[in-house]
Amino acid sequence: MMDEFVYKLCTEDKNFAAIATVMPDGSPHVSIVWIDADEDYIYVNTAEGRAKPENLRRDNRVAVSIFDADNLYKQAMVKGTAVEDTETDAEEHIHRMAKKYLGLEKYPHGKPDEIRIVFKIKPESVFKLE
Amino acid sequence: MMDEFVYKLCTEDKNFAAIATVMPDGSPHVSIVWIDADEDYIYVNTAEGRAKPENLRRDNRVAVSIFDADNLYKQAMVKGTAVEDTETDAEEHIHRMAKKYLGLEKYPHGKPDEIRIVFKIKPESVFKLE
Repeated sequence: MMDEFVYKLCTEDKNFAAIATVMPDGSPHVSIVWIDADEDYIYVNTAEGRAKPENLRRDNRVAVSIFDADNLYKQAMVKGTAVEDTETDAEEHIHRMAKKYLGLEKYPHGKPDEIRIVFKIKPESVFKLE
Repeated sequence: MMDEFVYKLCTEDKNFAAIATVMPDGSPHVSIVWIDADEDYIYVNTAEGRAKPENLRRDNRVAVSIFDADNLYKQAMVKGTAVEDTETDAEEHIHRMAKKYLGLEKYPHGKPDEIRIVFKIKPESVFKLE
């Protein structure tokens, strides 16, 4: 079961997250992403060819800091592992995210031939600032 | 010379940054921080005993994503190295940061015996979303 504070940060508001992975040379990578969750997992939607999916397939350890966009002092630092990545429903998922974050029916930034992927992240530890 | 877009993001508004480092076991670490810059370096103020300073002293490679707090789609992803860390003026610096971010003369979250440190980060590459 997901920590309730983390679940709410991921689902209730248009909150962003910083997601950190490790590059092939061992250096860190970070990007700001949209975030989603269910009762067990955190979901991050990305696209093939970016650093994140390549990094996560090589080393699935991930750090995610989810912060309240209206109050950046409210945040959760989650460590976990990417347990699955899938193209299935990833297109539908990015459109749902566009609805949540932008109020649009369709994700407006998609590129032709872009392949969306959803990473499923299992939280293993949480440090909270409430 | 610092990239002007990055410099402005770091100095003109109360923008936050996500800073990623690598843990001793090679897993990623990320936290949301206040940010500062001059014409050459990015500055991050932290405290002894936290993960960041220990990580950066072992492996000084760092990824910093600086985002506009009012428009999270405006951001700069910087890769660089922590070229120096110092206690000198770190107390004064955290008070200046408290002034910038909270409008307070004094940093309100200091703990007794806490040792502040400023990390000086040299940007090496920048990916911008403007």
